[in-house]
Amino acid sequence: MKYVLVTGGAGYIGSHACKALKSAGYVPVTYDNLVTGWQDAVKFGPFERGDLLDRARQDQVFAQYRPVAVVHFAALSQVGEAMAEPGRYWRNNVEGSLTLIEAAVAAGCLDFVFSSTCATYGEHDNVVLDEDTPQMPLNAYGASKRAIEDILRDFEAAYGLRSVIFRYFNVAGADPEGEVGEFHRPETHLVPLMLDAIDGKRDALTVFGTDYDTPDGTCIRDYVHVCDLVDAHVLGLKWLRDGKGSRVFNLGTGSGFSVREVIDQSRSVTNREVPFVIGPRRGGDCTKLVSGSVRAERELGWSPSRSTLGRMIADAWRWHQSGHYES
Amino acid sequence: MKYVLVTGGAGYIGSHACKALKSAGYVPVTYDNLVTGWQDAVKFGPFERGDLLDRARQDQVFAQYRPVAVVHFAALSQVGEAMAEPGRYWRNNVEGSLTLIEAAVAAGCLDFVFSSTCATYGEHDNVVLDEDTPQMPLNAYGASKRAIEDILRDFEAAYGLRSVIFRYFNVAGADPEGEVGEFHRPETHLVPLMLDAIDGKRDALTVFGTDYDTPDGTCIRDYVHVCDLVDAHVLGLKWLRDGKGSRVFNLGTGSGFSVREVIDQSRSVTNREVPFVIGPRRGGDCTKLVSGSVRAERELGWSPSRSTLGRMIADAWRWHQSGHYES
Repeated sequence: MKYVLVTGGAGYIGSHACKALKSAGYVPVTYDNLVTGWQDAVKFGPFERGDLLDRARQDQVFAQYRPVAVVHFAALSQVGEAMAEPGRYWRNNVEGSLTLIEAAVAAGCLDFVFSSTCATYGEHDNVVLDEDTPQMPLNAYGASKRAIEDILRDFEAAYGLRSVIFRYFNVAGADPEGEVGEFHRPETHLVPLMLDAIDGKRDALTVFGTDYDTPDGTCIRDYVHVCDLVDAHVLGLKWLRDGKGSRVFNLGTGSGFSVREVIDQSRSVTNREVPFVIGPRRGGDCTKLVSGSVRAERELGWSPSRSTLGRMIADAWRWHQSGHYES
Repeated sequence: MKYVLVTGGAGYIGSHACKALKSAGYVPVTYDNLVTGWQDAVKFGPFERGDLLDRARQDQVFAQYRPVAVVHFAALSQVGEAMAEPGRYWRNNVEGSLTLIEAAVAAGCLDFVFSSTCATYGEHDNVVLDEDTPQMPLNAYGASKRAIEDILRDFEAAYGLRSVIFRYFNVAGADPEGEVGEFHRPETHLVPLMLDAIDGKRDALTVFGTDYDTPDGTCIRDYVHVCDLVDAHVLGLKWLRDGKGSRVFNLGTGSGFSVREVIDQSRSVTNREVPFVIGPRRGGDCTKLVSGSVRAERELGWSPSRSTLGRMIADAWRWHQSGHYES
């Protein structure tokens, strides 16, 4: 059995990754503390409940499964929360990842796939964001992810750990087969908030700022379908197991959509009105985050074919109408 | 009494800072675990033994003295060691500083002076290193210091912590009155290693690489006299207490000297031969690190008048011949 340890495997992206890893012939072992994840989302392999800061638990899980690699999603990932409680982000994300990385090295598990973020770049107006863009994060979420990237490089120099680092742009959509989907608690993501607003499950969507320097004044983001995103992780794992060494890849399509464009597309896909109100800018938001790199497509052979706005919203809407987790 | 908490006050720079703070009317409270510091170097105020990771001990010291500010020197600071044992650097420096910063905020002590380093910049050939140069550290020492800078910014946004961050270039020299001086264990610093070699206390100095792209092939560094360096900290403290807000300052003179120039100057100052051998390059060393900023001089009124190479070596040599610590 080729076990892969998937931290955060009970979360939105992690659960989709487990499905993709299983399809690719691996057995995903979910390691998750269920603080933001859902036990119901663990459907594709064993579940081991545990915390990123619990080294003893990690040692036990590495000994039990002897995974061939780690795919590390587990993190606190809300910018607003990070700005209000930066210590939690530095402890959970950085100290926690350090603990996990030390456990992996101690277990001789030296192939490591890591979820980083375009938030590590910070604000670079009119600059194409590629993997060589200087990283100047604006908040504790981005800074904590950059610190983990640093730790991975330090541990490569010291112990030969090999890492594929993916810097995500915005992720949306859901498994088209409806087995897993997007749920966060609290919910802060644009698409699920918007779909909830559409069918009255929550108040009108708030658009944070319409005075950005963009054609319609709202922020522009580069959206990737979660199924495309996790496919890249399977390719990244293969890249490492083929001995190709450490590499950083942006995961974005290069096309940006404004918040207003997402709203318009949602109206069109759902054939329903999108109730929204205009609010002030939210701290920590950049004007525009669009990937300027095709490295993942060129080098990994990644093809984000499902990442059209219509497809992402349609898949999210299907999940929104039928999918749910109880626990 | 205006107490100032000085972490690492038993170390080389920290002990000189305690002397300068005392002269400026503060009472420096040294907080040090004595792993790399010397109890004998604590001469200018109370000593509280404790570790950066020990939050309970820090809470007790904050409660006992109610310091008006923190001047935070304590850190592991050897590049070679950082490359071999990065986890120690991330835990001691980053997790330890986070612990201290959280304790300071909890105690309402919101003025914070921090020792960072030009190693946070990484290699920028032919670029003047000023405070806006992108930070791309090459090793766990520089990366750990950059992470602490990030944490300080995050805690300012969340809790109003104000920080003056000093990015040191190379520090040399000693208190001309001979009360404190430079000792490291193990010793890895150029000037003390050289002075030891001059009077036969250790083997010939090793020059790590003579094939760098510099006029004489050896690395170039910007040296600051430790007494000038700590003067900047007193000015930084005043800056914060005057309500001028957070600011980053390089501490360098803008003049670089090669390793060969330091050796030649030492021969001249001591009137003794400097035994040295040529070795290979050492991992983690940059070709040239020279500050391209006069911000500290312009804004803080800092005047690094003792930072001539001859003066630094003369003061170090005087200490070398007469000063010592037992414990």
